[in-house]
Amino acid sequence: MAAASQLPIGAVTNQAPANGTVVLFQGDSITDAGRNRASADANSAGALGNGYPLLVASAALAARATGGLRFYNRGISGNKVPDLQQRWTTDTIDLKPDVLSILIGVNDFWHKLDHGYTGTVQDYEQQYNALLDGTRQALPRVQLIVLEPFVLRCGAVDARWFPEFDERRAAAARVAARARASFVPLQTVFNQHTHSAPPEYWAADGVHPTPAGHAVIAEQWRRAAHL
Amino acid sequence: MAAASQLPIGAVTNQAPANGTVVLFQGDSITDAGRNRASADANSAGALGNGYPLLVASAALAARATGGLRFYNRGISGNKVPDLQQRWTTDTIDLKPDVLSILIGVNDFWHKLDHGYTGTVQDYEQQYNALLDGTRQALPRVQLIVLEPFVLRCGAVDARWFPEFDERRAAAARVAARARASFVPLQTVFNQHTHSAPPEYWAADGVHPTPAGHAVIAEQWRRAAHL
Repeated sequence: MAAASQLPIGAVTNQAPANGTVVLFQGDSITDAGRNRASADANSAGALGNGYPLLVASAALAARATGGLRFYNRGISGNKVPDLQQRWTTDTIDLKPDVLSILIGVNDFWHKLDHGYTGTVQDYEQQYNALLDGTRQALPRVQLIVLEPFVLRCGAVDARWFPEFDERRAAAARVAARARASFVPLQTVFNQHTHSAPPEYWAADGVHPTPAGHAVIAEQWRRAAHL
Repeated sequence: MAAASQLPIGAVTNQAPANGTVVLFQGDSITDAGRNRASADANSAGALGNGYPLLVASAALAARATGGLRFYNRGISGNKVPDLQQRWTTDTIDLKPDVLSILIGVNDFWHKLDHGYTGTVQDYEQQYNALLDGTRQALPRVQLIVLEPFVLRCGAVDARWFPEFDERRAAAARVAARARASFVPLQTVFNQHTHSAPPEYWAADGVHPTPAGHAVIAEQWRRAAHL
């Protein structure tokens, strides 16, 4: 590489600044979306997976080429809030995000049905509050985006999920308000989308979004984050 | 599954029609984009890869939920026009696409530099014409979209590529016109984008797009296809 002083002015000013905006996606399988966990690189297609983080990053990097945006995905399939807590320092705080997006909660309920998990709605709210309290302390200026956990009534999602899953959604909204996070009401958004196509069209098993479902999340995310 | 007559009317009419629009992406590694070649499913994230076919499909499936769109990616890394010709019946004609998108040409030149390939510009044009002539014969009503092969002047792309690569771009434009295809002038588009960020920002090695580069292609593609 040529030293900066040898490059034409345009090339230098167009480079992403080293202190550019770091955007981090955290969550479970919906966020993970088949990403290559061996890659820690920013703005890498494989490392972003093939879900809403890739859709958001691709569109925002094209629209804001001079913005110095650096996108990371650290979602891990199967995670619940206590799993995020265990890896939070390494996988979140150490990355010093300017924008931190979190989508967590579906496994906190689902794993009670088939993994023997016993956490209550109150546990979820207290653990999630503690996670964001610690985040605010470590990163006072971070822009927080909390995505509402959502399900569609098809596939694995049946009557057993309710009303507890709705109580957990309400808890996530309270957690977001307490942490002064932007709250993205994905359940409402997906409920509206089921007027134009059936639940399976947006999430085949009721939990994991199709490409169409990921596009819905990405659009809502960009509006909330102004990116 | 309940029989159709047992479902509420809304659920039935919102199903994708069995004879919905089939959209097929053909090409080389830029189209392949790490797709799971073991999956032949339509509208599957893994099967679409993490490049412009996924970005197009996700956005179009969300925007046109009642359109019965079925997206397939059959791009294969390293392919040149003669490689497409060999697998065209199985991988293209048999899928009976309503919309067929093709991006091919970079390896037809690149492999002359480091793979001992000897095809000329005239070979490229004649082979590509023959491929599309056969396609028009087999699928008279198919909507054809020819994406201009493009490179950015960085990474693997140096002075050896010119002027031959420009001659190949011109050949692709003639092929598209002859086949009554929509031609998407990606080289012009990317040249314009290098005013806002350096070539590496759009294609790190000069050939393979970054997520930002894929978003640029996807946007141009959707405009050309009206999807």
